[in-house]
Amino acid sequence: MRFELSKDFLELLRSKIEEQDLLWINENLLGLHFADIAEILDKLSNDEAKYIYFQLEEEVQADVLMELEEEVRDRFLASLSSKEIADQLENLDSDDAADILGDLSDEKIQEVISHMEDDEAAEDIVDLLNYDEDTAGGLMQKEFIQAKLDWPVDRCLVELRRQAEDVEKVYTIYVVDDLNKLVGVLSLKRLLFASPKTKIIDLYQGKNIISVKTSDDSEDVAKVMEKYDLVSVPVVDLQNKLVGRITLDDVVDVIKEEADKDFQLASGISERIESTFSVWRITRARIPWLIIAMLGGTLGAQVIANFEVGITQIPALAFFIPLITAMGGNVGVQSSAIVVQSLAKGNDQFGSIMQKLSKEALVALVNGLILSSIIFGIAYYFENSTLGLVVSISLFTVIVFAAIFGTLIPLVLNHYKIDPALATGPFVTTLNDIVGLFIYFTIGMLLYQI
Amino acid sequence: MRFELSKDFLELLRSKIEEQDLLWINENLLGLHFADIAEILDKLSNDEAKYIYFQLEEEVQADVLMELEEEVRDRFLASLSSKEIADQLENLDSDDAADILGDLSDEKIQEVISHMEDDEAAEDIVDLLNYDEDTAGGLMQKEFIQAKLDWPVDRCLVELRRQAEDVEKVYTIYVVDDLNKLVGVLSLKRLLFASPKTKIIDLYQGKNIISVKTSDDSEDVAKVMEKYDLVSVPVVDLQNKLVGRITLDDVVDVIKEEADKDFQLASGISERIESTFSVWRITRARIPWLIIAMLGGTLGAQVIANFEVGITQIPALAFFIPLITAMGGNVGVQSSAIVVQSLAKGNDQFGSIMQKLSKEALVALVNGLILSSIIFGIAYYFENSTLGLVVSISLFTVIVFAAIFGTLIPLVLNHYKIDPALATGPFVTTLNDIVGLFIYFTIGMLLYQI
Repeated sequence: MRFELSKDFLELLRSKIEEQDLLWINENLLGLHFADIAEILDKLSNDEAKYIYFQLEEEVQADVLMELEEEVRDRFLASLSSKEIADQLENLDSDDAADILGDLSDEKIQEVISHMEDDEAAEDIVDLLNYDEDTAGGLMQKEFIQAKLDWPVDRCLVELRRQAEDVEKVYTIYVVDDLNKLVGVLSLKRLLFASPKTKIIDLYQGKNIISVKTSDDSEDVAKVMEKYDLVSVPVVDLQNKLVGRITLDDVVDVIKEEADKDFQLASGISERIESTFSVWRITRARIPWLIIAMLGGTLGAQVIANFEVGITQIPALAFFIPLITAMGGNVGVQSSAIVVQSLAKGNDQFGSIMQKLSKEALVALVNGLILSSIIFGIAYYFENSTLGLVVSISLFTVIVFAAIFGTLIPLVLNHYKIDPALATGPFVTTLNDIVGLFIYFTIGMLLYQI
Repeated sequence: MRFELSKDFLELLRSKIEEQDLLWINENLLGLHFADIAEILDKLSNDEAKYIYFQLEEEVQADVLMELEEEVRDRFLASLSSKEIADQLENLDSDDAADILGDLSDEKIQEVISHMEDDEAAEDIVDLLNYDEDTAGGLMQKEFIQAKLDWPVDRCLVELRRQAEDVEKVYTIYVVDDLNKLVGVLSLKRLLFASPKTKIIDLYQGKNIISVKTSDDSEDVAKVMEKYDLVSVPVVDLQNKLVGRITLDDVVDVIKEEADKDFQLASGISERIESTFSVWRITRARIPWLIIAMLGGTLGAQVIANFEVGITQIPALAFFIPLITAMGGNVGVQSSAIVVQSLAKGNDQFGSIMQKLSKEALVALVNGLILSSIIFGIAYYFENSTLGLVVSISLFTVIVFAAIFGTLIPLVLNHYKIDPALATGPFVTTLNDIVGLFIYFTIGMLLYQI
């Protein structure tokens, strides 16, 4: 039932584009779902994509445009004239249109806007351009359906019919008072089954209305929509006047991007990058962390150099350096990950730091006991019981320290409004390496009485 | 406008519960949004929560129950009789009811079901229990609205009014033929604005209908809903008969859980755990990875032991062990993370492995060149130019190898249907440690001519 893009189809399509075989294209491509068409255009050259794009119906064009991969869309738009871009914008939802314009230069934006025929739509878009893209204002669209408190159902239906032309998906009708302040919501289902003369004021739900402010952070919008199970949320200004709405599908993108960002931060990548980006852009996002890790490694080298006499006398001490650093790193990352996720869920207003720390320390004690008993046997086999003791006592100490650091660092970062996911990255690993080496060699020198 | 839970409020509430001050509770608590009430109950003792819960209206009870944290809900349900649980289930959507029952023993399920008064609802729930919870069948609900092709709009409205009583949120009406096979969809908006005698067959949209099969994996459902921007998706059986629907809010949970799981896998935690779990459960989820890392560290110790003569003669070689292993680990994790994410996006049918590898190798070359020139200076400062050469050549080699492993391993795991996020965890780090040490000491022995 669903379309599956194959290499063969793509090759065939390419040859048909070259032959300008519109009959074939019409039959095999233009009837597909817009998301599938976008997926196909993503794989074509810009000229090929443009050829197909302008065969599509206007409505479908808008949908396809928004589904294209960002890089493909940027390239595509760059090859259009201001007039052509303006034509595309007319068919888009205001939030999508603003997103597209937002990527252009101010000069180009003015040019495009001047070519738009629908003044009201142009005004909406220009208004949306004022909001930071990471806020509710940046996410919202101007297309929504509203009803006034004193309308009867039949008048409401007439008004809605008029309004609904611009609104693709209707989930909820927002009810406003005479000052355009949001006072409640009304489900389409409720309206559908009410008698024509009933007034909205007797139908609408005015209790526990969840709305967001234009300046709210987009991550907070996502949290609110998740918490309250909303499919769309009304956006109000500082005076509680209704100015837009945000739909869950836009917020799903925010949720995914946030998860991607956390995953990348934890993997030591400093910007949101995709595998399609240029070598230089990928390098730039990755090298800062590597430099930090390298400086950490240099500090580690300095620690070991300070204990050079230990290595000269007992070379076997060097054998377990990677084990100690690896374990410190792994335990630290585990501890941070748990804290980062519980912070991300926002369910930690009441979990005191001491409570978290003591639990984490307890887990570390259990893990430390199990692992250090195993490693005693291994190190004993490598050299002798002194090395066994050194490695197992150090490992135990390092695990406990790493767990404590791993827990504290994200909490501290979060306190200073820095993304705690940073902690699960090379940061905590590097710190634990250095501390771990220091603990290991200090215990080694003590037990070997060097 | 939105409720913010504070410590003070919670303390006050506790004392009011003790005093059984229903007036205060009514005024300050029972009117809140169900999600806020659930948040409050999460923080109370089971007895306190139960007291509040049974003051709530029946409809609100169901909503609150589904919003409780899993552990709190399990504890709460365990303290109810089968009859009481059955009463709660009557007010829940079928998918939520099935989720709750699914956690109970078979015996308890039978008991609860036998207490349910609504036979049809009970049947729906029992049916849903048959599906694996990670499939579309496990996600779907039996509450949806359907219309037959040959109905006129007015009959459709009458039928919908009847059906809609059970359906909390209506987004789309599913259109079926006489055999109950899904043939299309109809938006409520469209129905609302049609004339009474128009037939559904002339209104509905039958092209490009996206549906999922009961056996589809829940992650695939999430991908489909994202790709096609759906707020709800119909679920069909093997004969294309309509059996349920899945709404986006349930899928958002799947998306979040998937992201959490990836993040935890990458952090070396083997089950989905939460910070509220018991020490033992957290330990159990974490220790397998630590043991793998420790065995890796032991292999690393063996590698170094084989080069013991090198360390005896040039103790400074030991200084840079942590740097080499840390850099290998970090580069490997970065490379894996990018591959894992591009695999998760599912946009890689056409990206050939060779293409990915060569790009990753190119990035590694650039990073390697920059970093190994810096480290040459540092190692030179520590000892002499020979050590400088050893460390910088090894670092360069290790970075390139780590990038290649980091790219290949998730691709291989994915090929064998193993979650590629495993690769970004301790797995790739450990492997890179061992390979890195081997490269480092081999080059060291060569250049120092030991």
